[in-house]
Amino acid sequence: MPESTKQELLVGVDLGGTKILAGIFSPQLQLLQTAKLSTKSERGFDAVVSRIARCVRDAADEADLGLKQVRAIGIGAPGAVDPDSGEVIFAPNLRWKDAPLKKALEKELEIPVFVENDCNICTLGVHEVELKGRARSLIGIFLGTGVGGGLILDGKLYSGFNKTAGEVGHMVIQVGGPKCGCGNNGCFEALASRTALFREIQKAVKEGGKTVLTEMLGADLAEMKSGDLRKALRKGDKLVEKVVESAAEHTGIAVANLINIFNPEVVVLGGGVVEALEDEMMSIIVETALDYAMPGTTKGIEIVASKLGDLAGVTGGAVLARQRAK
Amino acid sequence: MPESTKQELLVGVDLGGTKILAGIFSPQLQLLQTAKLSTKSERGFDAVVSRIARCVRDAADEADLGLKQVRAIGIGAPGAVDPDSGEVIFAPNLRWKDAPLKKALEKELEIPVFVENDCNICTLGVHEVELKGRARSLIGIFLGTGVGGGLILDGKLYSGFNKTAGEVGHMVIQVGGPKCGCGNNGCFEALASRTALFREIQKAVKEGGKTVLTEMLGADLAEMKSGDLRKALRKGDKLVEKVVESAAEHTGIAVANLINIFNPEVVVLGGGVVEALEDEMMSIIVETALDYAMPGTTKGIEIVASKLGDLAGVTGGAVLARQRAK
Repeated sequence: MPESTKQELLVGVDLGGTKILAGIFSPQLQLLQTAKLSTKSERGFDAVVSRIARCVRDAADEADLGLKQVRAIGIGAPGAVDPDSGEVIFAPNLRWKDAPLKKALEKELEIPVFVENDCNICTLGVHEVELKGRARSLIGIFLGTGVGGGLILDGKLYSGFNKTAGEVGHMVIQVGGPKCGCGNNGCFEALASRTALFREIQKAVKEGGKTVLTEMLGADLAEMKSGDLRKALRKGDKLVEKVVESAAEHTGIAVANLINIFNPEVVVLGGGVVEALEDEMMSIIVETALDYAMPGTTKGIEIVASKLGDLAGVTGGAVLARQRAK
Repeated sequence: MPESTKQELLVGVDLGGTKILAGIFSPQLQLLQTAKLSTKSERGFDAVVSRIARCVRDAADEADLGLKQVRAIGIGAPGAVDPDSGEVIFAPNLRWKDAPLKKALEKELEIPVFVENDCNICTLGVHEVELKGRARSLIGIFLGTGVGGGLILDGKLYSGFNKTAGEVGHMVIQVGGPKCGCGNNGCFEALASRTALFREIQKAVKEGGKTVLTEMLGADLAEMKSGDLRKALRKGDKLVEKVVESAAEHTGIAVANLINIFNPEVVVLGGGVVEALEDEMMSIIVETALDYAMPGTTKGIEIVASKLGDLAGVTGGAVLARQRAK
């Protein structure tokens, strides 16, 4: 791309509890370059804002582009966000409360900044880029450390009365079930997140269950990652298979609940767990969802895994930037 | 109201599995007259259509009004409906499949007819008449023989890709819980409908539990009604209290799920169970919902019982007629 003084590039930022990923996009939403930095939230809000700015500058520099060519930046933040003010109302993973992210980052970079919840952003990215805006209604469900979601209704992001819609991870699907990080019991997140998978495996091992994971990682399974579960499954590990199947079944039931309630055209699953275990989980998720959904609700609808993987966040950020920039 | 040849009146019809209720409304949606007939679905589709027509004529006649003054009729039917064609796709309680209700009734009455799902219609009635269209987003939840719901999003009825949205009764909230009529286990409906309440009471009595209901109704409790539960509660019946409390708690969890997912401005509860047991259930429902909903989601939202009672259906029918009639 030739050097230009036109402000036509878009930047998407995926701000997570542990890492910042920035992506530079063409006006047609083609990804030109990414850059990654650790978040280091323990250093406080100002330091994180500077790191986001540095990550954006790094990505631009790596692609031989200048920030003057950037029209707007869209950021997904892990928590409750006021998209109008660009404040992060509450983000426990960052230890932020009422953090003026838009204002602070605009001051640092002198580029318009727009902020949204991270799962909303991922859903927006999937809808606009992966599905080319085709579906009028879409639910995005992201299984990672936690479980989050986003809703597209009538072709637009739906955020609800307090801008908190899409908290599908805290839908209770098993009253009296396992304790969730939120304090309730039996949330979808407590049954199908990475945290839930690891908890169940560790519990089974403590109760004397056998798995190749202890050979791979040691008895305490301290450094376990989603990819390790995939490796164990490929080695025919029955304990891991049972735990992953159970998480997939619970995800299928959660998908059916959302189909019964919303009747969306497309349900997209993403996040680290689905990315690592797609082959093992998706067929069970789809089968269970179709089994539990009411007759007539699933005709013509799609339940699919996102192909965007780790890039859903930055992609959605660029979409948000394009939508909101004047 | 003076006799007039202007076609300005609106008719709402609540078509249920056992009864038909018709209401004549002023153009300002004031209820002028109702009439009631049993459905007699065993006589087949044509007979039911004739009975709906007769019920509408009865209501008009009783109010000294003529059908010529009616602008349009809106009907809520208990099942999946295609609101564009006015066909009832599937209504198990009526034993209807692909039933051309709009067409047949228009032929019979020579008045434009519009059809919707019964819970959608009730939600529409509550939104437009009880809340005066105030809430941008609303979930209506109706606890009766089964549990149904309707969604208002961005101020309009939301029906989804296959027009089946709002099946909140078949949201699984207790994996492995009691069997539901739909074949799944642990649906909201299997934990909080009238059927579920009666099942739990009958089970407890079989297991030796004591209740004044057996004195009131005989040992088999065959003719039990929601109102009997209210009477038993007022007599301090501990068995009934426990069952009703459990249903209210499960309803509260279901409400919290919907708040987490949708973040609506208002949640309205209605239906025969709520109408009969409002004093006993609503405080538990609200308390449980606020307890289970995520922080920040409930700020400024309302969780209330509908005041429309049995008239929600006919009211919503009149609203539909007014919205859809040219």
